[in-house]
Amino acid sequence: MAEQAKVAIVMGSQSDWPTMKHCADILEELEVAVDVRIVSAHRTPDRMYDFARAAEGEGIAVIVAGAGGAAHLPGMIAALTHLPVLGVPVQSRALSGQDSLLSIVQMPAGVPVGTLAIGEAGATNAGLLAASILAGSDAALTGRLKTWRQARSDAVAERPEE
Amino acid sequence: MAEQAKVAIVMGSQSDWPTMKHCADILEELEVAVDVRIVSAHRTPDRMYDFARAAEGEGIAVIVAGAGGAAHLPGMIAALTHLPVLGVPVQSRALSGQDSLLSIVQMPAGVPVGTLAIGEAGATNAGLLAASILAGSDAALTGRLKTWRQARSDAVAERPEE
Amino acid sequence: MAEQAKVAIVMGSQSDWPTMKHCADILEELEVAVDVRIVSAHRTPDRMYDFARAAEGEGIAVIVAGAGGAAHLPGMIAALTHLPVLGVPVQSRALSGQDSLLSIVQMPAGVPVGTLAIGEAGATNAGLLAASILAGSDAALTGRLKTWRQARSDAVAERPEE
Amino acid sequence: MAEQAKVAIVMGSQSDWPTMKHCADILEELEVAVDVRIVSAHRTPDRMYDFARAAEGEGIAVIVAGAGGAAHLPGMIAALTHLPVLGVPVQSRALSGQDSLLSIVQMPAGVPVGTLAIGEAGATNAGLLAASILAGSDAALTGRLKTWRQARSDAVAERPEE
Amino acid sequence: MAEQAKVAIVMGSQSDWPTMKHCADILEELEVAVDVRIVSAHRTPDRMYDFARAAEGEGIAVIVAGAGGAAHLPGMIAALTHLPVLGVPVQSRALSGQDSLLSIVQMPAGVPVGTLAIGEAGATNAGLLAASILAGSDAALTGRLKTWRQARSDAVAERPEE
Amino acid sequence: MAEQAKVAIVMGSQSDWPTMKHCADILEELEVAVDVRIVSAHRTPDRMYDFARAAEGEGIAVIVAGAGGAAHLPGMIAALTHLPVLGVPVQSRALSGQDSLLSIVQMPAGVPVGTLAIGEAGATNAGLLAASILAGSDAALTGRLKTWRQARSDAVAERPEE
Amino acid sequence: MAEQAKVAIVMGSQSDWPTMKHCADILEELEVAVDVRIVSAHRTPDRMYDFARAAEGEGIAVIVAGAGGAAHLPGMIAALTHLPVLGVPVQSRALSGQDSLLSIVQMPAGVPVGTLAIGEAGATNAGLLAASILAGSDAALTGRLKTWRQARSDAVAERPEE
Amino acid sequence: MAEQAKVAIVMGSQSDWPTMKHCADILEELEVAVDVRIVSAHRTPDRMYDFARAAEGEGIAVIVAGAGGAAHLPGMIAALTHLPVLGVPVQSRALSGQDSLLSIVQMPAGVPVGTLAIGEAGATNAGLLAASILAGSDAALTGRLKTWRQARSDAVAERPEE
Repeated sequence: MAEQAKVAIVMGSQSDWPTMKHCADILEELEVAVDVRIVSAHRTPDRMYDFARAAEGEGIAVIVAGAGGAAHLPGMIAALTHLPVLGVPVQSRALSGQDSLLSIVQMPAGVPVGTLAIGEAGATNAGLLAASILAGSDAALTGRLKTWRQARSDAVAERPEE
Repeated sequence: MAEQAKVAIVMGSQSDWPTMKHCADILEELEVAVDVRIVSAHRTPDRMYDFARAAEGEGIAVIVAGAGGAAHLPGMIAALTHLPVLGVPVQSRALSGQDSLLSIVQMPAGVPVGTLAIGEAGATNAGLLAASILAGSDAALTGRLKTWRQARSDAVAERPEE
Repeated sequence: MAEQAKVAIVMGSQSDWPTMKHCADILEELEVAVDVRIVSAHRTPDRMYDFARAAEGEGIAVIVAGAGGAAHLPGMIAALTHLPVLGVPVQSRALSGQDSLLSIVQMPAGVPVGTLAIGEAGATNAGLLAASILAGSDAALTGRLKTWRQARSDAVAERPEE
Repeated sequence: MAEQAKVAIVMGSQSDWPTMKHCADILEELEVAVDVRIVSAHRTPDRMYDFARAAEGEGIAVIVAGAGGAAHLPGMIAALTHLPVLGVPVQSRALSGQDSLLSIVQMPAGVPVGTLAIGEAGATNAGLLAASILAGSDAALTGRLKTWRQARSDAVAERPEE
Repeated sequence: MAEQAKVAIVMGSQSDWPTMKHCADILEELEVAVDVRIVSAHRTPDRMYDFARAAEGEGIAVIVAGAGGAAHLPGMIAALTHLPVLGVPVQSRALSGQDSLLSIVQMPAGVPVGTLAIGEAGATNAGLLAASILAGSDAALTGRLKTWRQARSDAVAERPEE
Repeated sequence: MAEQAKVAIVMGSQSDWPTMKHCADILEELEVAVDVRIVSAHRTPDRMYDFARAAEGEGIAVIVAGAGGAAHLPGMIAALTHLPVLGVPVQSRALSGQDSLLSIVQMPAGVPVGTLAIGEAGATNAGLLAASILAGSDAALTGRLKTWRQARSDAVAERPEE
Repeated sequence: MAEQAKVAIVMGSQSDWPTMKHCADILEELEVAVDVRIVSAHRTPDRMYDFARAAEGEGIAVIVAGAGGAAHLPGMIAALTHLPVLGVPVQSRALSGQDSLLSIVQMPAGVPVGTLAIGEAGATNAGLLAASILAGSDAALTGRLKTWRQARSDAVAERPEE
Repeated sequence: MAEQAKVAIVMGSQSDWPTMKHCADILEELEVAVDVRIVSAHRTPDRMYDFARAAEGEGIAVIVAGAGGAAHLPGMIAALTHLPVLGVPVQSRALSGQDSLLSIVQMPAGVPVGTLAIGEAGATNAGLLAASILAGSDAALTGRLKTWRQARSDAVAERPEE
C-alpha cells in the first residue's frame, strides 16, 4: 500500500486554491503523492458523492478538504467515507473564516473532521498532519518528516532582526 | 398542484424534534399538509440524496430543514433540489446555536437557504414562511394566513400584567 | 397571476445598491420581473408603510429587503405584509455585517424573514430563492432555474488552475 | 410643560416586563410620571406608528423602549419621533442579548437611540437617564436625583462580608 | 437656562477627533453651542474629575464622550455627574470597536451612559440625541430638529442610481 | 507494529475526564488499545515533555489530547513529537469552550493539531478519527469501523417520536 | 519595605467577593499580607481616587482589582498610581465576562493592567502573580511560592479516576 | 540584585518583532536592561524549556512573552518558572488577535500570566508594567517611571486639532 498511498486535496472552488496550494506544496516537499481536485459540495454534489465513495478504491489514504463560509465539504466527505478527513477553513470575506471554522469543526458525534487553523497555516498543517498519518506505516516518510521538523527548528534565529 | 402541495420538514436527529415540532404545529394550524422525517446529512447521506432528489416528484413544494452544530442538512438539500429550502438553526449545547446559524446562513452564491432564527421561534417562522410561499398560489391559504396574523396582533395586550 | 408576478427589491440606502444589484442581476438573468426601490425604515418610515401595505395589490409576490447595521427594514416589512420576505444582511463597516445578520435573522415567532448570507452572495441567493418561490407556480421559470443550476454545476472545473 | 412631562415605557411583549419593571420602579422612586405600554413593532406595527406619532402631543418627553432578539422597537420609534428615545436590550434566550444589543445600538446616522446595558441594569439605567434628561428643566427632580445618587454611594460598604 | 445650555464633547485623545468631529458638525448645523475638549480618563484623570464636577456649573446640559478600546471615559464621567452622558464607541484597531462598545454600554445599574453606534454614525447620533434632549425645553431647537429630519427624509431617492 | 499500535489519551486534569471518557469508550468499542493519562502542560510540564518524547518508542501511534480554557496541551505535544496529534476542546465555564477551541485549532504553520468539536462529541470523534488513522494499515480495524458506521446509520429512525 | 509590603485587593461590589475571595485565600496561604476593600469606580469615584493616590504611602506594593461588565476599576486605578495593577474580570450575567475581560485588558498604551482569566481562576492567579512580584525582593516568599508550585505539581494524579 | 535585574522579552517568531519592539523601546527609555530573544514554544520547545528554567539564575526578574494565534509561549513559560510572566497577544491575521488574547489570558488557576492588550499598545504596556514591578525595589526607577507618566499626562492637549 505504501507505494500507492496518496493524499487527496479537494476544495470547493478555484478561489480556495491560493490557500490550499500550501497543502500541496508541503506534501510535495515531503515527497507524498497528491491528487488535487475541485469538488464542490454545493455546486457539484454528485461529483462529491462519487469522489468520496471511490476514494478508498483509488488508493487514497487521507483526504484534505478546504472550504469557506458555510463550509460543508469536509463534513460531507467524512459522512461518505471512513477514511481520515482533515478540514481547512478558508478565510471568508465578511467573517474572516469564523463561519468556515465553526461549519467544519463542530461536527456531531460519529463523523469526525480533524480541523486545522483558518487559512494558509491550516493548509500547510493539513499537509503535515496527513504526512504524519501516512508516516505511521512508512519509515522513510517518518525520516523525511523528522528531518523537515528539525530543519525548521534549526532555522529559528536566536534574536529578532530589525 | 394546489391539492397535493405540501411542506416537508426534515431534521438531522430525534433531538431536533422538540424544536422542529413548532414548525409542524403552525403548519397544521394553517391546514398545510406536512411530511416530517429524520434525514441526517452526516449519518444517512444516501437517504438525504434520495429524499432531496425525489422531493419535487412527490409533490413537495417547500422544504424546511432543521439542524444544529455544523449544520449541513439545509445547505446540502439546497444543493440537490431547486425547490425553496428554509433552514432552522437548532440551539446547540456549547455555542448556543451560533455555529448552527453560521453553518446554515453563510451559503455561497448559487445555493440559497432562507434562514430563520435560532431555535423554536425560527421553527415557527419557517412554517409561517413556508405557508406564505404556498399562499402565493392558494387564495384560501392566504385568507387563513391573514386571519392568523390578525388574531395574533389582536391578542397583544395594551399594558403588561404583573 | 403568473404574468404580473414580480419581485420587489428594496434597500435602506443608495449605499446598499452595489450589494443588492447582484439580486437584480440574477433575477433579470432568469427573466423575472423586478421592481427596485430605496425604502428606508429609519429615514422614510411612511414610505415603508405605504410600500409594504400596497405590495400585494401591486402584484408583488416576493419582497427582498437588504439593509446593514441595525437592519430593521426586512423585519418591519414582514410585520406589515403576509407576503414572503427575504432579508439580505449588507456588510457593515465596523462589525462586518454581524450586526446586520443578527438584526435580520433573529425575528420573534410570528414574523418570519428568510435570511440569506452577508453581502453579495446573500443578494444573489435572495434572487435565486425568490425565483424558486415563483417557480412553484410557473413551469417555464422552473425550467430556466434548472438550466441555470445545471450550467453552473457544469462550469466547475475538475482541477484548480494556477 | 414641567407638570405634564412624563416618560413612556414601551416594550415588545409581556415577557419583557420583568426586565422593564426596573425602569418603572426607579422612575416611580424618583417621582417621575410614567406611562407603561406593550407596543410590538412586529405584531402591532400600526399601534407603534400611532403611539410614536402621538407621543409629543400627549406630553411624553422621553421614550424608553425595551425589546429582545431582532429588537426593532427602539429604532423604529426613533424613526417616527424627534423625542429622545432610550433603548434597553432585553436578554434573549439563545444569544443572551447580543442580538438585542446590536439590533438597538447600531443605528445609522440620523436616527439615534441612546442604548443602555443588556437586561435589568439597562432598564434601571434607562430610567435614571430619562430622569436626568427631565431634570435639565426641573430643579426639584435634579435634587431628588442627586439625593438618590448620594444615598447609593453612601450605601457602599467599606469591606466585603462573607 | 436656554441661552447658555450647551453640549460638551469630550474624547480620550486626538485620534478620536476624526470620529467625534461628526458630533460637533451636526450640533453646529442645529445651532447648538458646543464645547470640545480632550479629556483622557487614563492619562489625565484629574482633568476628568475637574471637568465632570464643574460641568453643571458651567452651563453644560449634556455631555457626549467618545473613547475606544477599554473605553472608560463615558462611564467615569457618568459616575461623577448627574448630567445626561452619551457615549460614542470609537472604532478600535484590533477589535473594530467591539471592545469600545462593551466597555461603554455595559454599565452597572445606577450609572447610565446612553450609548450610540460604533464610529462616525454614533458620533452624529450622539449630537442628534443631545439636541433632542435640549429641544425638550427649547421650542426653536425642536423646530430646527424637525426641519433637519424632514429634509433628510425628503432627500432619500426613490430608486438607486448606478 | 500493528500489534502494539495504540492510542494515547491525555488530558490536562481530572475534570476533563467526563469529556474524554467518550474517546476511550469508542476506542474500546472498536477494540483499539488505549493508554489514558493526566498530563498537564501547565502543572506538570516535565511530565508532558517526557510523555511526548517517549511516545513513539512506546508504540503509541496517535495521541488524543483534551484541554480547556487556554488549552496548550495538544499544541505543545504536537511541538514535541511528529506523531499525529488530535485535540479536543473541553467546554470551559465562562466561555463555553470558545477559548479552548481557538487555543487548540489556531496553531501556526509547522505544528498541526487535528481539532475536533467542543465537548463530548469532539471526544468521541477524536476516537473515531484515531481509529480511522490506524485503520489505514489494519484491515480488521477497517472492517470494524465500517461496521460501526453502518450500524449507526441504520439506527436512524425514519420519523421522529414524540 | 519588605516587612510592610502588602497586596490590596479591591472590588467594585459585594457581589464580586465570592470571586475575589480566591485571591485573598491564595495570598493568605502564601503568608502575604492583604488589605481587602470595596471600591466602586462608578458608585464611589472619590473613594477610588483617595485609595489609589494613597496606596503607595500605605505600603501597598501591588493592587489587585476585580470588576464585572463595563469594568473600569482596574484601569482607573492604574491611571491614578504607578504601582503594578492586576485586573480580574468577574463573570457577568449576560455576557459571561466577555465584557469584563475586554473592558479590563484593552487598555491604551501608557496605562497597563496585567489581566488574568475570567472568574475564580483569574482571582487565584492574580494572587499568585502578586506573590511572584513581591517575591522578587523577598527570598522567603520565593521559597514558599516554589514549595506551593511543587506541591501542586506533585498532586497531579497519573491517571483519571472514574 | 537591583544592578543585574533585567527584563527578558521573548517572542514566538521574527514576525512578532514589530509589535514587541514597542516593549523594548519603552524599557530602554526607562533605562531598564532588556534581553530580547526569539523563543518559539512550537518550533523550539527545548530552547523554551532551557530559557525558562535558566531565567532566574541569569538575573531575569520579569519575563514578557509575545505570541499570536494559538499563543502558548507566555503560558508555557509561566508553567516553567515562578518569575512574573506578562503576555502580549500579537494581532493575528484572520481573527485579529482574539485567538491570541484568549490563548494567553484564560490560564487555569495556578499558572498566572498577566495579560496586556492586543498589539502594540499591549507591548508598550507590558514594558511599563515590568518597569513598575522592578520599581518596587528600585527607587530611582520609581522616579523615572513617575516622571514618564507625568510627562505623558502633561502632553495631552486641551482641545483637538483639525
